[in-house]
Amino acid sequence: MSPLPVALDAMGGDHAPRETVAGALLAEREGVPVVLVGDPERLREELEKAGGDLPIVPAREVVSMHEPATAVRRKREASINVAVRLVKEQRAKAAVSMGHSGATLAAALFILGRIKGIERPAILAELPADTRSGRVHLIDAGANADVRPNHLADFARLGRVYAEAVTGVEDPKVALLSIGEEETKGNQLVLAAHKLLKKTPGFVGNVEGRDIMSGAADVVVTDGFTGNVVLKLAEGEAKTIFKWIKEALSDGLKTKLGALLVKDALRRLAARMDPAEYGAMPLLGVRGAVFIGHGASDRRAVKNAILRAARLAESDFFKTLGA
Amino acid sequence: MSPLPVALDAMGGDHAPRETVAGALLAEREGVPVVLVGDPERLREELEKAGGDLPIVPAREVVSMHEPATAVRRKREASINVAVRLVKEQRAKAAVSMGHSGATLAAALFILGRIKGIERPAILAELPADTRSGRVHLIDAGANADVRPNHLADFARLGRVYAEAVTGVEDPKVALLSIGEEETKGNQLVLAAHKLLKKTPGFVGNVEGRDIMSGAADVVVTDGFTGNVVLKLAEGEAKTIFKWIKEALSDGLKTKLGALLVKDALRRLAARMDPAEYGAMPLLGVRGAVFIGHGASDRRAVKNAILRAARLAESDFFKTLGA
Repeated sequence: MSPLPVALDAMGGDHAPRETVAGALLAEREGVPVVLVGDPERLREELEKAGGDLPIVPAREVVSMHEPATAVRRKREASINVAVRLVKEQRAKAAVSMGHSGATLAAALFILGRIKGIERPAILAELPADTRSGRVHLIDAGANADVRPNHLADFARLGRVYAEAVTGVEDPKVALLSIGEEETKGNQLVLAAHKLLKKTPGFVGNVEGRDIMSGAADVVVTDGFTGNVVLKLAEGEAKTIFKWIKEALSDGLKTKLGALLVKDALRRLAARMDPAEYGAMPLLGVRGAVFIGHGASDRRAVKNAILRAARLAESDFFKTLGA
Repeated sequence: MSPLPVALDAMGGDHAPRETVAGALLAEREGVPVVLVGDPERLREELEKAGGDLPIVPAREVVSMHEPATAVRRKREASINVAVRLVKEQRAKAAVSMGHSGATLAAALFILGRIKGIERPAILAELPADTRSGRVHLIDAGANADVRPNHLADFARLGRVYAEAVTGVEDPKVALLSIGEEETKGNQLVLAAHKLLKKTPGFVGNVEGRDIMSGAADVVVTDGFTGNVVLKLAEGEAKTIFKWIKEALSDGLKTKLGALLVKDALRRLAARMDPAEYGAMPLLGVRGAVFIGHGASDRRAVKNAILRAARLAESDFFKTLGA
């Protein structure tokens, strides 16, 4: 029996289907089989241009970025629905989409359902950090803008199991994002959540914004509003700083000469900070591996998302959570 | 008549009174008169060591970092209370403290009271950004962990007047921090606040985390929980990136040589990102100029805080708000 493929919503994303198809071919070349989901004519055309071949599962509809997430209920044959159904029917091991995040979340919830004991699925983002694994797991990075304290306890559990089973961190340290290390510091949500999180294995207490990347914890738990702001600020700040470095290094002959010599080292560092390195973010808490990517994803991001989705599906994550 | 001095809580901060006294002397040398508030013997001793002289207003008590903010009610002669009273009595034009933030906030509220029409004073932080002024004004950066929508409207007004009157930005653009640019994106607080902010002059809509430093707005409005996380992440990430740059530039002979040539340029950039550059943050919405600094402040941060406090006091900020 051949291994199950990853189902790619090939119609989702700003540069679909060109970059989705190209990314899928790159993933295939690295040993992960992929099935493309979408308009067969468009996809065959792209495959031909790219000089590759991949199986296609037809999907006649698409949820566009201008539609509400609930469009997945109406458009049963939308590519995102078809991709997630392949996971449900065990014809694919994971689903990946660079399209409408809300629609992907809705499709995953409706079709796959939640893992027992998890009230709210959440998005996990990985950011570069000074931890043992070189990254920090931030959860929730945007699925739930308003949450209750027990949801944060769910996120802590999901994040810890992911860090251990997928990233391979031994006994991951879990922290609650707050505005002071003392358990008396925070907003009402965090004060109440702290009490619940004390019962979570690996809980090391509160961390502040300054500790997210410094390596104080392997998993940082927060609501989806704060988490989304954190994720996008972290990406935006890295971009701004590297832009300023570029400007600073083009000022004066001596500096310009030095810039030539350090270019490669800085480029490697910038690549480490590039969101495309991670490709996409898993939606954790549903009964199956689903990854949600940036709309702007290029082929490298698509490829990395597919590889990571396969890795989650093959890990002990779902078994550990009893899913 | 000699100009009014800035009152410095010389006992507040991890390195007080050594760094507070040294910073006050630096500010004095740059033309801003300072009065030290605290234990006269300790302060005279420090002044002697530093070889300088400044007026002292005695304060026999101190609110320590381990006490609750409400200690300012009990310890009427605490240095922070005495410093703020000097502002109230118009014997000082501004008060600055690197000590207990909560106590400073409480003292300012109790002694100076709120500006009419402002329900909740807020802390304004300035971060380096790609705006016209080279910085973005983030408000609230930590005074109010839980707020209502109308408080965010107050923060917008305070931030805009500050950016215009103190920083000198013409017609500042004000944005609401959210998780999507559309007004339908956000948590319950932000969705409700967006409606109120539409009536604020200069309002340009929502911005995301990625836009904070990119220059999309001169003033970014948020609750004190999110704002404090943003402020500390922005500082922490800059620190982490510059640490990684240092590591990347010490790898290999060619890179090391280049590093020597670009050192000065990178150092200037790192200095621009250093929180000590700003020194401290104004507490806006009380009837007087009060600045709250990092506990870890060194003399440069203390000096910059004093200069900025004097600048706020001398600006049209209070007049514009009818205070």
